[in-house]
Amino acid sequence: MENGQIKRRVKLAGMGRAIAGGKVVFGGETRYRLTAGETLLDLAMEAANLALGDAGIHMEDVDCIVCAMATPLQAIPCNAALIHERMAKGLDIPAMDINTTCTSFISALDVMSCMITGGRYGTVLVLAGDTASAALNPDQKESYELFSDGAAACVLTKTGPGEDSEILYSRQCTWSEGAHDTQIRGGGGLMPAFSMTEENRTDYYFDMKGIKILRLCGKKLPGFVEECLAEAGITREEIGLVVPHQASKALDIIMPRLGFSGDTYINRVSTYGNLVSASVPNALCEAVQEGMIRRGDLVLLMGTAAGLTVNFLLLRY
Amino acid sequence: MENGQIKRRVKLAGMGRAIAGGKVVFGGETRYRLTAGETLLDLAMEAANLALGDAGIHMEDVDCIVCAMATPLQAIPCNAALIHERMAKGLDIPAMDINTTCTSFISALDVMSCMITGGRYGTVLVLAGDTASAALNPDQKESYELFSDGAAACVLTKTGPGEDSEILYSRQCTWSEGAHDTQIRGGGGLMPAFSMTEENRTDYYFDMKGIKILRLCGKKLPGFVEECLAEAGITREEIGLVVPHQASKALDIIMPRLGFSGDTYINRVSTYGNLVSASVPNALCEAVQEGMIRRGDLVLLMGTAAGLTVNFLLLRY
Repeated sequence: MENGQIKRRVKLAGMGRAIAGGKVVFGGETRYRLTAGETLLDLAMEAANLALGDAGIHMEDVDCIVCAMATPLQAIPCNAALIHERMAKGLDIPAMDINTTCTSFISALDVMSCMITGGRYGTVLVLAGDTASAALNPDQKESYELFSDGAAACVLTKTGPGEDSEILYSRQCTWSEGAHDTQIRGGGGLMPAFSMTEENRTDYYFDMKGIKILRLCGKKLPGFVEECLAEAGITREEIGLVVPHQASKALDIIMPRLGFSGDTYINRVSTYGNLVSASVPNALCEAVQEGMIRRGDLVLLMGTAAGLTVNFLLLRY
Repeated sequence: MENGQIKRRVKLAGMGRAIAGGKVVFGGETRYRLTAGETLLDLAMEAANLALGDAGIHMEDVDCIVCAMATPLQAIPCNAALIHERMAKGLDIPAMDINTTCTSFISALDVMSCMITGGRYGTVLVLAGDTASAALNPDQKESYELFSDGAAACVLTKTGPGEDSEILYSRQCTWSEGAHDTQIRGGGGLMPAFSMTEENRTDYYFDMKGIKILRLCGKKLPGFVEECLAEAGITREEIGLVVPHQASKALDIIMPRLGFSGDTYINRVSTYGNLVSASVPNALCEAVQEGMIRRGDLVLLMGTAAGLTVNFLLLRY
């Protein structure tokens, strides 16, 4: 154990991603939205099959299916049960949702790595993805033109003999001063679908207060990152690539303020916009596919999510 | 390590529960529903404060807040962030949701015990609870007269020196043949609130196919329980008390078929009905308060959930 945490000998054994087939263009940039015949289940299944193929395993080899998504597909059952129905029907594999909104994928790696090193599971399939387009408000240009629909998946497994993949350090915080700066107020138990009227219809749309979020992040994020780096005993220079949540174009303002210059992190906001929970794994998958990350590299996954929750996870790929 | 699992030296250090203030009576039995001025956040906070008090700790001592609820309070952010806003605003404590529908509490113990023994967190506050009444269909008598609104919470922490509390064994399976036997089809990304019409309104209500669930459970559950007992290396006689999910009156039909006679498990269905995710922790809390469970006793938490997911977790209290 170092820095108060046990290093977790786990490995991202395979990854996959799938972006929605519909295209809309705003100011020269494309955003991807589900077409009429498509659902998030289709994209999640495509991403998961690519991840399984990349890892060289089959669904039967998976010990747990985890959906790390920000929003529910149905109010009941959990998303992972619906994925299970598509991909694992007839198998006994447990299905579970882990949700910290946009950074759910990082939280799921954090959590499931402990279950793997604790001997509870051997191989875990983690799926992220959201249908942002289901709740975008056409009158809120800032968010309406930002989001895309997509999914991404990874296979997390024990690190084999002679391999050095591991999670070295992770931290998560929630600053609920920002709980209502990013939200969909309606649609849950507090304001069910039945309560929607013409007057409160906008409460059922996604609502983002960009300036307030930036202000809260500006106040808290630099200290958080410094603390994490110090606790992890690592310098910025040792990190091969930072994969931040692709929150918005403000990424190129925030990252330098956190001490990360433009060539140290991946930024695909202009390509995809914000893919909600799929943002981090989609960017991570692209970075691996493009050779920006190689086995043995130190990779930092980080981001802010509605909550406001912030995640920092350092892994050796 | 025994039975392929590392024993987890964790302890239920404190518990609390809170039932909704409104009462409705069906056939002589009371069900509890939120009153106009009450929300699930109020109940969850009350249960959590009781659990913290029972454990003799304060919110500042908690390292992670986990909501183990079946349904969202808002579509975004996650439930735990909204609890955090009520109970931990200004603190850095991470907030996260873990969801396997009705057995979310058991899954959360399973997951967080691995994070605690992995050194990731020391003390975790787990909250369960749902507003069943937000989506009950008055035309489906079987479910309309079954559910109550309520919350329950527990503090999970490391077992101290000289104490013998532990989780000995846990298993979870999902049988997605039953994915649509218990569901709320609408309200998520697949069928957003905006899509509700007079014609499809019932899709936004809770829908339970009791007979189909019983048939699937009858087929799969006995074998599952036998396997778990064998893997855990335990006999029914060694278990002090079984705390099953309080699914319905069929409990007294199912439990004997699983080899558990009437005095070996707690059944409070006639008192509360089904409290969704709060059912198991509420019954567990009552059992402890009434002296049915003492320190050192073996306790089996088990149940079925929408998915269809089934959980089995054996702990020494």
